[in-house]
Amino acid sequence: MSVKVGILGATGYTGLELIRLLINHPQMELAFAGSQSSKGKRLKEIFPFLEGFKEGDLILEDYKEIPQDVKLLFLALPHEVSMEIAPQLLERGFKVVDLSGAYRFKNLPDYETFYGFKHTHPEVLQKAVYGLTEVFREEIKNADLVANPGCYPTATLLALYPLLKNPDLIEEETINVVGLSGVSGAGRGLKQHFHFPEMTDNMFAYKVTMHRHTPEMEFVANSLTRKGLKFRFTPAVVPIDRGMLSIVTLKVKKTDLRELYEETYRGEEFVKVVDYPPKSKEVIRTNYCFVYPSYDERTQRAVIVSAIDNLVKGASGQALQNANLMLGLDEGEGLRGLIPSAV
Amino acid sequence: MSVKVGILGATGYTGLELIRLLINHPQMELAFAGSQSSKGKRLKEIFPFLEGFKEGDLILEDYKEIPQDVKLLFLALPHEVSMEIAPQLLERGFKVVDLSGAYRFKNLPDYETFYGFKHTHPEVLQKAVYGLTEVFREEIKNADLVANPGCYPTATLLALYPLLKNPDLIEEETINVVGLSGVSGAGRGLKQHFHFPEMTDNMFAYKVTMHRHTPEMEFVANSLTRKGLKFRFTPAVVPIDRGMLSIVTLKVKKTDLRELYEETYRGEEFVKVVDYPPKSKEVIRTNYCFVYPSYDERTQRAVIVSAIDNLVKGASGQALQNANLMLGLDEGEGLRGLIPSAV
Amino acid sequence: MSVKVGILGATGYTGLELIRLLINHPQMELAFAGSQSSKGKRLKEIFPFLEGFKEGDLILEDYKEIPQDVKLLFLALPHEVSMEIAPQLLERGFKVVDLSGAYRFKNLPDYETFYGFKHTHPEVLQKAVYGLTEVFREEIKNADLVANPGCYPTATLLALYPLLKNPDLIEEETINVVGLSGVSGAGRGLKQHFHFPEMTDNMFAYKVTMHRHTPEMEFVANSLTRKGLKFRFTPAVVPIDRGMLSIVTLKVKKTDLRELYEETYRGEEFVKVVDYPPKSKEVIRTNYCFVYPSYDERTQRAVIVSAIDNLVKGASGQALQNANLMLGLDEGEGLRGLIPSAV
Amino acid sequence: MSVKVGILGATGYTGLELIRLLINHPQMELAFAGSQSSKGKRLKEIFPFLEGFKEGDLILEDYKEIPQDVKLLFLALPHEVSMEIAPQLLERGFKVVDLSGAYRFKNLPDYETFYGFKHTHPEVLQKAVYGLTEVFREEIKNADLVANPGCYPTATLLALYPLLKNPDLIEEETINVVGLSGVSGAGRGLKQHFHFPEMTDNMFAYKVTMHRHTPEMEFVANSLTRKGLKFRFTPAVVPIDRGMLSIVTLKVKKTDLRELYEETYRGEEFVKVVDYPPKSKEVIRTNYCFVYPSYDERTQRAVIVSAIDNLVKGASGQALQNANLMLGLDEGEGLRGLIPSAV
Repeated sequence: MSVKVGILGATGYTGLELIRLLINHPQMELAFAGSQSSKGKRLKEIFPFLEGFKEGDLILEDYKEIPQDVKLLFLALPHEVSMEIAPQLLERGFKVVDLSGAYRFKNLPDYETFYGFKHTHPEVLQKAVYGLTEVFREEIKNADLVANPGCYPTATLLALYPLLKNPDLIEEETINVVGLSGVSGAGRGLKQHFHFPEMTDNMFAYKVTMHRHTPEMEFVANSLTRKGLKFRFTPAVVPIDRGMLSIVTLKVKKTDLRELYEETYRGEEFVKVVDYPPKSKEVIRTNYCFVYPSYDERTQRAVIVSAIDNLVKGASGQALQNANLMLGLDEGEGLRGLIPSAV
Repeated sequence: MSVKVGILGATGYTGLELIRLLINHPQMELAFAGSQSSKGKRLKEIFPFLEGFKEGDLILEDYKEIPQDVKLLFLALPHEVSMEIAPQLLERGFKVVDLSGAYRFKNLPDYETFYGFKHTHPEVLQKAVYGLTEVFREEIKNADLVANPGCYPTATLLALYPLLKNPDLIEEETINVVGLSGVSGAGRGLKQHFHFPEMTDNMFAYKVTMHRHTPEMEFVANSLTRKGLKFRFTPAVVPIDRGMLSIVTLKVKKTDLRELYEETYRGEEFVKVVDYPPKSKEVIRTNYCFVYPSYDERTQRAVIVSAIDNLVKGASGQALQNANLMLGLDEGEGLRGLIPSAV
Repeated sequence: MSVKVGILGATGYTGLELIRLLINHPQMELAFAGSQSSKGKRLKEIFPFLEGFKEGDLILEDYKEIPQDVKLLFLALPHEVSMEIAPQLLERGFKVVDLSGAYRFKNLPDYETFYGFKHTHPEVLQKAVYGLTEVFREEIKNADLVANPGCYPTATLLALYPLLKNPDLIEEETINVVGLSGVSGAGRGLKQHFHFPEMTDNMFAYKVTMHRHTPEMEFVANSLTRKGLKFRFTPAVVPIDRGMLSIVTLKVKKTDLRELYEETYRGEEFVKVVDYPPKSKEVIRTNYCFVYPSYDERTQRAVIVSAIDNLVKGASGQALQNANLMLGLDEGEGLRGLIPSAV
Repeated sequence: MSVKVGILGATGYTGLELIRLLINHPQMELAFAGSQSSKGKRLKEIFPFLEGFKEGDLILEDYKEIPQDVKLLFLALPHEVSMEIAPQLLERGFKVVDLSGAYRFKNLPDYETFYGFKHTHPEVLQKAVYGLTEVFREEIKNADLVANPGCYPTATLLALYPLLKNPDLIEEETINVVGLSGVSGAGRGLKQHFHFPEMTDNMFAYKVTMHRHTPEMEFVANSLTRKGLKFRFTPAVVPIDRGMLSIVTLKVKKTDLRELYEETYRGEEFVKVVDYPPKSKEVIRTNYCFVYPSYDERTQRAVIVSAIDNLVKGASGQALQNANLMLGLDEGEGLRGLIPSAV
């Protein structure tokens, strides 16, 4: 027997990725696909390659039309739309996994500084659980609203978690992070600098001092450590469709990082501690996070490199992992068939 | 009247790039192309697209056959070969621009630590001038042996130079650098992970704690500042043929970085201070370095991003810029026709 | 209960793709991985991203060590090795799916002309069944030796099959085919022109008048039509890892091509007739073939464009589809979870 | 002394490429840059990497403001705009190189069929000279209006010209052409399928039976042969920014194609007959066309493959080559410094 779920914002890249994952999920059924801009169309009019799948025949509908037997909704919506609509959906009894940034951290002023809007539902925000599965698994199981992490925070916090669990090892207030992302992270909307002839053979840093994922990383890191850590985070975009590396540098007490990391992640299905700097291609189209910890004696810095697919573990895959937990299903269901590759 | 020059190691990527630049140079003539592995062949047998250019008809010759009317030699050779051969060439009266790492820094033990060999010509090393043109222009003009900088050090030191000139502004001992490089930086030799089906859509960090360009950056930075700076340098390779970004982070006194940078580089033809994070594609196939300085109030860090073409400003272009100076020619000759683009 | 299968030549790209598919297959178990060059190593030493999968722990073994409870073997070997070893394996009672070209067509002289060797097992060749699943499904079910089609012939023959079934529609002896392939089609072996810096941003035709897949296409087309058709086949390689287009042009009687194609492929799970020129990316990492038929009134030519993933429907996916049939399993098992995408 | 020239439509890709070429041209000066959509802005506001070049300081102006001392105008405009404006500019005494399709062929009904508009200036059309430099050089020298060829026609007609000059060799009415193009050929305007995450790793045919360059190829081929040839032309787009291959197949009398091609193109600076299928990357960012003729005995077909950069020889480079001739300058001026490469 399948659980019925729905997606609001089904026509973006994270929406599409959710659809593809749900087609394969043996215990969930995609029963509702919402889109304000394309309502009335069939999904396969937007994504013609879905011809022949029953999900392709779904008619995109207004958000108000969600059938009441749907148990859980994925919100793949703009931040402000999610902020407004999530409380209403919770009210109506749906469980919600929100893929936007609207419910990820509790520090209200940071919404104004980094997102440019005032949070209108601080009371709901207090109840949201941050969906970094490997860190907050137990809370997620009981949550009605999970704020699914951003792609950079997923890669970065998984790279740091064994140290954040052991805050005494951290000897520096400011953590340096350079994140490298595939272009799908910026979404399906067209922009001149992502026009193929300009983006191919190209790379550039952006939002150098002010990226929205900074307060998210800081909030989670400080929840875990109570240390007042700051993140000096510089993102750059590289000419790949999917894939993300986080290169994290911080001063730590000398320790056996490999042992610490392997112990922390022992038994995790989707986080693997590897003994070489991971290649982003190895994890694309999978839900894995590969983490490589190393220590530089010369500068007494830990250098940790992690790799994920920004659309899977960094968005829709982790959202499904969380939904599995919220619905009492096996956490890896629908994600286990995605196998790493070299080519 | 043209000056005759030669290349030893003409069949690699930096050799090829030098040939292409020299075809266009109005005052230099490529009179000798050396290659131990391909001697006896014509250049166009290696590079068939050079058919029709007189340089394509050059016969690759043994290094011993250099005609005495050649004034200057570019060495595009493995480090140890350069180390051995450069002193002999100087002895025979040639000026030398060495593109290898053999003569770039003076600290002997670092050759053993980072390059794995003991330097056999410390006395010649003392006389070598580091060819970062914009910084050591006057010394280069009078040098017989110029050690042409590595690609990462070129991008990183040009990103830092205005601060290195003002060491009082620097408030941290350890400078964090993440360098992103196109694959041509690794040369023409075949490797499994650079096989197209594996490298496309891919990126990964490498030599995370021990890259050879680290002691080079430290030596130059400390020559300029006398401060004992350390570089925490992490390189990563991305799926582009050419292009390099250096993302440099360090704690500095609050200052007007833009003014400092513009003042430092005023009048420089090939270094431009830009007001947006530069795109690597803008400078590929040119000799430009674009530098973007910014300051993050939250963490009191300067974040400087620079962009070059690793094969041009990061290798053969800068080598030609230096050769122009060593031969008393206009520094930009043969390089000025390479114009930035978006596509 | 799982059926045990094995792979000879497990370390190439088609071998790897088979391993990935078998990890997901609910009714097959990879019980043997053979490699002459890497024997004694674990699979995960070659493919470190398989760490954590039990298949990654398989020890690569000599071909002689195949356990007798293995039912079926996939040969991902060089043509001549396959030619010699397949008869021995059949003799020992294994079913065989041969991914090489050794048993694909019956015309002996073409092996000398196009492959450069004399076929040493013409009697076995007579019994081999050509594994173009949608065309020879019934024969495949009862075969002991299936010659799995080449990638270009798969794309091209599926593009042509509705016409080949109706040979009276064909009004020209020579069929024009341009095939565009991703680089993985050339295998895992290193070559200068597939070195990333040279292959990126590049494309070129190759083996313009003499590609090995030509006699294969002709043999199958003429088996179906008895018409003496010739293929003017020009392949070109483009800078993608996976993906293949076949652009087929031939003079035909005016007819309703769309109806003909839809009727021919009605009910096929993996061949879809689409109403736009298919994008290769839509089918990569899936077993689908998308076919677009069109008719040009001006020149009275049919122009049919088909798209596949050269490593899946063009190699390992179709091999698994055939193995499913040979073992009495559901044809789509292990392949159904691979869903098309746009990104 | 420089000749003053101008560009109308300076902010597209062909406009940008012209600007870059003119920066390097020793005898032309870019004195006017027109843009209706961006008038009043400086060029460097559109293309910030032009900062520091005096051309970057040009103010984009209304087409009416062209100074009278400008001798020649490049029109990089939409077809219909060019059609209307070219006659007015000729009237005002400017020489014109039109990069649009508006004046390329004389057969009026084809404008309606393939371009969707009725030609409003048939009398001007009669006087336009088709700017395929190597074929119509003498006419171009004396022309006031040159219709610069499309990219596919340039590559295809140069691949065919030695046969078109010898029409008796051609034994087939219908010539088969598959053209492969980089994405810049589609211009700077944004489209969903050219959004980087969708176009990377992708390729697809388009306008399969009805591409606008078909009547252009046919008109020129039939002007030269008087044979009533038809072109079955299928274009496809591949994931590169620049570069184009034309793969041409036609039945010909057996002949020594190599000799014929070498004789035809002897002495041409920018067309080279090569003895291997040319790589598109070799000619990108150059004005060269590499042509490879071959003959397939089995099918009695000539297969000719040519390679160009669609933005240079296929657009702005050839436009400059033509402008040089129209102004009495050396044909290769400003184009000679663009040297082929492998990387």
